[in-house]
Amino acid sequence: MSGSNDLYLRALRGEKVERTPIWVMRQAGRYLPEYRATRARAGDFLTLCKTPEMACEVTLQPIDRFGLDAAILFSDILTIPDAMGLGLVLEEGVGPVFERPLRSAADIAKLGRPDAEQDLGYVMDAVRVIRGELNGRVPLIGFTGSPWTLASYMVEGRGSKEFRLIKGLMFEDPKAMHQLLQIVTDSVIDYLTAQVLAGAQSLMVFDTWGGMLSTENYQRFSLAYMQQIVSALKNDQRTAATPIVLFTKGGGQWLELMAATGCDGLGLDWTVDLATAKDRVGEQVVLQGNLDPTVMNTGAAQVRDEADKVLQAYGQHKTGDKGHIFNLGHGIQPHAKPDNMQALVQQVQQHSAAFHGETSD
Amino acid sequence: MSGSNDLYLRALRGEKVERTPIWVMRQAGRYLPEYRATRARAGDFLTLCKTPEMACEVTLQPIDRFGLDAAILFSDILTIPDAMGLGLVLEEGVGPVFERPLRSAADIAKLGRPDAEQDLGYVMDAVRVIRGELNGRVPLIGFTGSPWTLASYMVEGRGSKEFRLIKGLMFEDPKAMHQLLQIVTDSVIDYLTAQVLAGAQSLMVFDTWGGMLSTENYQRFSLAYMQQIVSALKNDQRTAATPIVLFTKGGGQWLELMAATGCDGLGLDWTVDLATAKDRVGEQVVLQGNLDPTVMNTGAAQVRDEADKVLQAYGQHKTGDKGHIFNLGHGIQPHAKPDNMQALVQQVQQHSAAFHGETSD
Repeated sequence: MSGSNDLYLRALRGEKVERTPIWVMRQAGRYLPEYRATRARAGDFLTLCKTPEMACEVTLQPIDRFGLDAAILFSDILTIPDAMGLGLVLEEGVGPVFERPLRSAADIAKLGRPDAEQDLGYVMDAVRVIRGELNGRVPLIGFTGSPWTLASYMVEGRGSKEFRLIKGLMFEDPKAMHQLLQIVTDSVIDYLTAQVLAGAQSLMVFDTWGGMLSTENYQRFSLAYMQQIVSALKNDQRTAATPIVLFTKGGGQWLELMAATGCDGLGLDWTVDLATAKDRVGEQVVLQGNLDPTVMNTGAAQVRDEADKVLQAYGQHKTGDKGHIFNLGHGIQPHAKPDNMQALVQQVQQHSAAFHGETSD
Repeated sequence: MSGSNDLYLRALRGEKVERTPIWVMRQAGRYLPEYRATRARAGDFLTLCKTPEMACEVTLQPIDRFGLDAAILFSDILTIPDAMGLGLVLEEGVGPVFERPLRSAADIAKLGRPDAEQDLGYVMDAVRVIRGELNGRVPLIGFTGSPWTLASYMVEGRGSKEFRLIKGLMFEDPKAMHQLLQIVTDSVIDYLTAQVLAGAQSLMVFDTWGGMLSTENYQRFSLAYMQQIVSALKNDQRTAATPIVLFTKGGGQWLELMAATGCDGLGLDWTVDLATAKDRVGEQVVLQGNLDPTVMNTGAAQVRDEADKVLQAYGQHKTGDKGHIFNLGHGIQPHAKPDNMQALVQQVQQHSAAFHGETSD
């Protein structure tokens, strides 16, 4: 028992905290030898996701090793479409692929809304097991892909560069597009609610592909549905107190629009200047990010220098600021060095207190 | 002889024009059957680029077919590294690959600055042949990749998703990184100057990968070198009158920084809201863009609707505005339908006059 660390939750509620909390996107991942060992034992990635004890094991590995301030549920972002019957498989060298992608408005009309506890019970079981194993050490973050991001995978059938199929649907049959986004959104709301009921203490929405849209279409086809999610969770007494963070990769132009949803925090990718973001929306939302993940592939000296720059960019936490949570601007990469993660966590935990002193200006 | 159309150049100089000019990135490309026929005759892409008569042929194809308002030199963005001896080849399904990528500071130290007329004579010959064939019909745009974009390819050896090698160099050996960017920049200045002397009437810098950088590193490693290019060309009486447009894909957060270089225009990708961009920098620079290229893969009705939205987003051209040049927000894709290009050109040429009327407000 190393005591209870709720720094991340307090920061996410916009409270004054003694230092900047840190967690890292994909902190449980291939860069860690112990993760690779568990995955080898699981045989494949989806078995790892679908076996609560194994998902728990990899979720806790970076907490045990680095002393991060929050754990994030280990799972895949495509669990909902999988539960809808699209047949998720992982192809080596390609990534996630659906065996039965959506190819018509008729395919969309046939979709059903999964029962989160029944059809995605392995995720809720993982949340419960992890909460038990964490035993209060650090908070647990639940998550989902954004409706637009899930819909993109469901229509393209796999990752894409040009998003020709999903954008074709968007331009040529916006009614079917909205129908798809609505059933995915309803399912996401059920899914996040169930995660909270199972024990998730904060939530994150990963909008990996919203940044591929024009500003107008981002608002109509991605943000409007994230807005529904935020509103639904904030209006449900079971989830109203659970902070929620939105992250649109490539969304640096849209921070004001995102903050206006009423979410608690925004994830920022590394292209965003954190000082400018603070000026723009720092009194409305907590800002989470945003070190360039490729720094983690270099040397510890570079990691410390670049971490300091991020801390300095946010600068002093003053009254009225919602605050800063340290993270990378995107997931840590397989080539990252575990020693760099240690250097990063130490640097942030030791150097950030200076930015939380009481100042009157 | 169909007369001389200098609308594009007048618009790029910020003059009042009677309608919005249009050209399209990659307007000479795989979506056109006549392009595919010429390329088949050439045998491969690099032979097409390096044979001035063939480069001229494909450059003029979309002008002849659609009546666009500008032609752009058909060439590859990697001609300079190829002339530096890196050995450019095109691998089917992979794209451009260098046989001898840069793998050390020693590799960088050995690089020589190409003689634009001798080592890249085929490009200048193409410019001269095209100008002759165009015979004043529409202006000819010359171009280059940005130093950061060229350096990325030179170090990665090919296109990349994570830019691990180039960013490793940037973080771990910034001195060598700057040395590389400087010799590339000097070579780009020579190259663009030679294109102007050969007959290019405006210039475009494609910063395809600048959007992968943090704001700080964008300024240090991409924009600073584009600034050198703009300054050098503006300070040389041979090139001072030739308008230059900068395009950083994913650079929507940095329009003010880009406009401050003294360039004449900015290319905008489709994620940027054109009305907002006009408010931000529309009195400093001409704005070029920015229809989502995937629209061109759908139907003619969608193309016309979306083109109208772009025209409306820029809105009325008023005194003090530098103006708008219509384009896509990135290159037209191989799946685009030629009939959609016709619909787009007609829509812009017919509907844009309404935005150029004399108004007093």
